[in-house]
Amino acid sequence: MRVSPSNDSESGMTTHRIEALTDGIFAIAMTLLVLTLDLPEATKQMTQAGLDQLLLEQIPKFSNYVLSFILLAIFWIVHHQQSHFIKLTDHRHLWLNMLILMFVALIPFSTSLTGDYPDDWLARFFFGANMFAIGILFELNWVYATKNHRLVDPSLGRQRIVMGEKRGAVTPLVSLLAMGLSLVHAPLSSYGYILIPIILSLPQFRSRSR
Amino acid sequence: MRVSPSNDSESGMTTHRIEALTDGIFAIAMTLLVLTLDLPEATKQMTQAGLDQLLLEQIPKFSNYVLSFILLAIFWIVHHQQSHFIKLTDHRHLWLNMLILMFVALIPFSTSLTGDYPDDWLARFFFGANMFAIGILFELNWVYATKNHRLVDPSLGRQRIVMGEKRGAVTPLVSLLAMGLSLVHAPLSSYGYILIPIILSLPQFRSRSR
Amino acid sequence: MRVSPSNDSESGMTTHRIEALTDGIFAIAMTLLVLTLDLPEATKQMTQAGLDQLLLEQIPKFSNYVLSFILLAIFWIVHHQQSHFIKLTDHRHLWLNMLILMFVALIPFSTSLTGDYPDDWLARFFFGANMFAIGILFELNWVYATKNHRLVDPSLGRQRIVMGEKRGAVTPLVSLLAMGLSLVHAPLSSYGYILIPIILSLPQFRSRSR
Amino acid sequence: MRVSPSNDSESGMTTHRIEALTDGIFAIAMTLLVLTLDLPEATKQMTQAGLDQLLLEQIPKFSNYVLSFILLAIFWIVHHQQSHFIKLTDHRHLWLNMLILMFVALIPFSTSLTGDYPDDWLARFFFGANMFAIGILFELNWVYATKNHRLVDPSLGRQRIVMGEKRGAVTPLVSLLAMGLSLVHAPLSSYGYILIPIILSLPQFRSRSR
Repeated sequence: MRVSPSNDSESGMTTHRIEALTDGIFAIAMTLLVLTLDLPEATKQMTQAGLDQLLLEQIPKFSNYVLSFILLAIFWIVHHQQSHFIKLTDHRHLWLNMLILMFVALIPFSTSLTGDYPDDWLARFFFGANMFAIGILFELNWVYATKNHRLVDPSLGRQRIVMGEKRGAVTPLVSLLAMGLSLVHAPLSSYGYILIPIILSLPQFRSRSR
Repeated sequence: MRVSPSNDSESGMTTHRIEALTDGIFAIAMTLLVLTLDLPEATKQMTQAGLDQLLLEQIPKFSNYVLSFILLAIFWIVHHQQSHFIKLTDHRHLWLNMLILMFVALIPFSTSLTGDYPDDWLARFFFGANMFAIGILFELNWVYATKNHRLVDPSLGRQRIVMGEKRGAVTPLVSLLAMGLSLVHAPLSSYGYILIPIILSLPQFRSRSR
Repeated sequence: MRVSPSNDSESGMTTHRIEALTDGIFAIAMTLLVLTLDLPEATKQMTQAGLDQLLLEQIPKFSNYVLSFILLAIFWIVHHQQSHFIKLTDHRHLWLNMLILMFVALIPFSTSLTGDYPDDWLARFFFGANMFAIGILFELNWVYATKNHRLVDPSLGRQRIVMGEKRGAVTPLVSLLAMGLSLVHAPLSSYGYILIPIILSLPQFRSRSR
Repeated sequence: MRVSPSNDSESGMTTHRIEALTDGIFAIAMTLLVLTLDLPEATKQMTQAGLDQLLLEQIPKFSNYVLSFILLAIFWIVHHQQSHFIKLTDHRHLWLNMLILMFVALIPFSTSLTGDYPDDWLARFFFGANMFAIGILFELNWVYATKNHRLVDPSLGRQRIVMGEKRGAVTPLVSLLAMGLSLVHAPLSSYGYILIPIILSLPQFRSRSR
């Protein structure tokens, strides 16, 4: 599909609108995660001990829920940090956003996959690919918007732009690492993502000035 | 149900409100699409190869997800382009919007249908009818709002109005084509929708001036 | 739970906030309706004719979907007409709204009930009770807010207030009728609701002046 | 994850944005509760009496739905009361909010748990722990924001701050009580939560002045 930044058919589109849709999709994806915690059917004949066992077996699914919720929260914060600086929109930017939203809406499915098939490398690999797609699209979005100050304020400093690129590289790189780990040891791979908030809170990855 | 454009019972209704509801319904429909990717129950006895096979069989469902997400994104953009120009609302316009939302909310079901019964003509035909309904209602909405500049700014140019009609005719016509294809060869029919973004990005279908 | 209109613990609450929550819940309830259209599992051995038969059997569920969507749309319009005039909020008004939202969020369940047990009087009766609850709460909300112009603009005319009461009585009365019909002939009862939009569009139920 | 209140990487974050996400997540969690009312499959051979019996057995699930909806409404009101006074945000506050939202999004699951395993202490205990987590995080949020007037208006009075702390302690304390009750008598535990609205409406727990 040919797209053009000067295509004025989106002239009526404001970043405000895209943000409303984005907040909606993030809120729903975060809440739908809870559907990944579906319980296996308990039978009436089950003993109390059997039932407790059943509930305790859900703990790995629960930790998947927490992981995905935190990753979604991080992505939401990234989106808002970017959109704080991005004042304009065009056809390409709009569709980059739509692609991001498509992969964000996919997270409940990827999470459900790793919960249902915890030892399967393909499930973990798919989850990693989903995170990689979101991370790389956010990076592309930032690079596209800041290139020649295309969609950002002309006064936005070089340092801020570079810091955005540096921070934006963290998620795709960690996701690639986790995808690699999934080939070696599936359950281990999910621990890799803990690196994302750790790295992003390192002093080198924090803006120095307002 | 008798409706009247001069019915002032909607006097409290602003286009802003309809937009908030619309953004919500689009966001949810886009995210509920993910529920169409439900996996068949895997049994504990399954081998790794069997599991991989199971996951790979989901690829057609995944491409249905992508197709429906992109169509919803296109419809959302059309809605916002129209509502950029439509400054007023009345009873008829309100209910046209409600009908559009009813068919938008139906897309996750239609998508699920084509995913579960990929070779069934009726499933594909229903999906096409859903898209046709949305397309023709958007076209009606535009024609109704721009007729004698009923709900748009008096300064809105004839060229813009005609361009809107031309662009609005693309989805219903392509959907009719896809519905026809579904009678001949069901899986083929879903490729038809790729024509929508292609045609809409042709120079003849793009506004020349702001 | 004791509530008091002068309880200033809600002093931070604006009608704007309640509206945002309301729009969200309406949008989600309208979209979740689609989950009531779940298809019975088709088996791989099914013939094309068997599959077509299965899909065609869903038509009553589809008409339930349309009915509930339209009722939700009517309720949403009522909410916005009321909130156009209601400028203030207090503890009681806030909780009346919460109760309305609780029964609005219940509609996908009630719809699913009538779809799954089409010939059961209890399912139809429950659906009617759900609609009655929403209707009567909206009526109470209007009476409470307009009593001595408690939460509305002092300039709001008597005629408008009475018209709001008259319109607000339509849904509870029609729902009572439909609940009665469900005791006699279950499937017939759902046709009763068609009276709601018909009556509301009668000239006697339309405001005469802006 | 190291966090710092002076981390300016959230400089683009406004409380308005967090509120939009929050309203979305509350609206969805409230509406998803309805999915906890899923009916057991009725068989075609069922008699009318058997069907009625099946529906009437859902009453305890329905009362769980009402309880959870009301608790969510109370939490939403607490959130808005707090955010009415909290004018600023920082990294810690943002993540406290995200944790609150994570446990709010979990309520449909906890509700479903108590509905599916009504006599199981672990299900009731988990529900109580969920409520406790939300309550204690709201309390922490208030204490953090008001400490040295960190994120609130400097003019906010001591009395208001203390009242907020007092009100904020109700939910965690009642939840601890209910968790204790669940060890003794599971179904009884859910009645404990009725104390929350009762205590919050006592004169001692209501602000005296605007």
